[in-house]
Amino acid sequence: MSLPRRVRMVEVGPRDGLQNEPAPVALQDRIALIDRLSAAGLPVIEVASFVSPQAVPQMSDAAAVLSGIKRRPGTTYPVLVPNRKGLEAALAAGATEIAVFGSASETFSQRNINCSIAQSLERFAEVAASALPRGLRIRGYVSCVAGCPYEGAVALEKVAQVAGSLQDLGCYEVSLGDTIGVATAGQIHNLIRRVAERVPREQLAVHFHDTYGQALANILAALEEGISVVDSSVAGLGGCPYAPGASGNAASEDVLYLLNGHGIETGVTLDALVDAGNFICQRLGRQSGSKVARARGAGCASA
Amino acid sequence: MSLPRRVRMVEVGPRDGLQNEPAPVALQDRIALIDRLSAAGLPVIEVASFVSPQAVPQMSDAAAVLSGIKRRPGTTYPVLVPNRKGLEAALAAGATEIAVFGSASETFSQRNINCSIAQSLERFAEVAASALPRGLRIRGYVSCVAGCPYEGAVALEKVAQVAGSLQDLGCYEVSLGDTIGVATAGQIHNLIRRVAERVPREQLAVHFHDTYGQALANILAALEEGISVVDSSVAGLGGCPYAPGASGNAASEDVLYLLNGHGIETGVTLDALVDAGNFICQRLGRQSGSKVARARGAGCASA
Repeated sequence: MSLPRRVRMVEVGPRDGLQNEPAPVALQDRIALIDRLSAAGLPVIEVASFVSPQAVPQMSDAAAVLSGIKRRPGTTYPVLVPNRKGLEAALAAGATEIAVFGSASETFSQRNINCSIAQSLERFAEVAASALPRGLRIRGYVSCVAGCPYEGAVALEKVAQVAGSLQDLGCYEVSLGDTIGVATAGQIHNLIRRVAERVPREQLAVHFHDTYGQALANILAALEEGISVVDSSVAGLGGCPYAPGASGNAASEDVLYLLNGHGIETGVTLDALVDAGNFICQRLGRQSGSKVARARGAGCASA
Repeated sequence: MSLPRRVRMVEVGPRDGLQNEPAPVALQDRIALIDRLSAAGLPVIEVASFVSPQAVPQMSDAAAVLSGIKRRPGTTYPVLVPNRKGLEAALAAGATEIAVFGSASETFSQRNINCSIAQSLERFAEVAASALPRGLRIRGYVSCVAGCPYEGAVALEKVAQVAGSLQDLGCYEVSLGDTIGVATAGQIHNLIRRVAERVPREQLAVHFHDTYGQALANILAALEEGISVVDSSVAGLGGCPYAPGASGNAASEDVLYLLNGHGIETGVTLDALVDAGNFICQRLGRQSGSKVARARGAGCASA
């Protein structure tokens, strides 16, 4: 069983993470976090979401985030964009890469973005038609790939369909999100095999939440399936919006520790990443969701 | 890649877990925990340690634990025994299975049990020579299989040697312990392949701590290597004694969730296991170390 020699880590803490933390974080702290993350060598950092600040106060000042960060050569800074209006705002703020967020669950789509899956794909197609000619790259997300908080089980067929549609409309990569963190490794093997019939493995990423403690095992399963792009969130920022108090995203530090253990290249420095996570946890006044960070903080011997 | 169809879960919470919790737990609560664990269907529960109550106050009243529990048919209740004196006390208390605890690290052996590895193996051989003819089964542990808090790296060769010696002296099974939780999955693959040259896979178990968040991924790697006996601790009880505040053992609930996801038989009921974990966490006044337990407590949808 051969794992990828190199993995691209996509850091989603400043967006998916902070968006799901109860307390909004000050603009300058969000900028400082992003700059620390890029200094740690992360190649992709999702930094903001151009959504309504009334609906999502944690993501306000998206333009100020984009203008405030130091852009490190070698790092890209995608922003989430729900529609044409968000796209125009992102472009005006100097975004060079955007992300769109679809779902494999009809009910989740309705409740999360107020439209059917088909309507969301039409909307994203409009966004893409406008964004691609202007030189933007587009990353696609599919949420609820392993289960939906409303519907329960989600058909692999549906995940493959939505992932394929996102690729068709111009996404260079589709990230498969276990939004509620219920998947186990066997399910991930099946999921990727099925989706890979529609979208090549080289264009797939995985995005796992640790709600049931399975994120690292699931990432290992994805690596075994030849996936080489992994989303994670520094300090495990975020949570399960459907279960207040539950764990958030896979912690970037713990993912990097796993990858380092396999000798997989990432270009990311663990020490600097841990520092970035500790910085934001201090600002949030919460314990790190990264066990690596906690073990180091506790003075535990490190391999 | 085929995983085992059936896994034997070895519950170590009442011993390895509670021994490493800062606060000793009342005798009747330890007994109540063990009875809840057996009612959940666990086939093996390590319930006590016959060591000096001065040295390890958390493990005092070992005989009272053994006499207080309801013995469920189908569950065995091993106890840890450091030497002949401990063996006699365990036998007098009605133990039918014992465990001995060796190390693959010379320095750890000296600091943990005050003798060299060779001396510990001689001691265990004496214990075995006295225990086996009296019908006791013996389980062996090797600690520090992936790293030592004092020495750092530990040679695979050394792990294989100690595991082999434990088998030679009569242990029916040898549990490989990543005592400080530093291993990653690739290391586990290599470890098991090397040790399996000396001790057959059917006689090996794994015992992983989650200090660096890797326990579930490491268990998955072990299952992929054909290991079908997994130690874990309900609610992730315990800690890293070398790093106060760090995580403890792999949480039994999270391990069971992983195994259930693969359709692997265990005979253990998740609901009852979560209840047992929540019971002891309430008594300890601490949050569960199981993410499954926390997700359920938070009302998160479950797969």
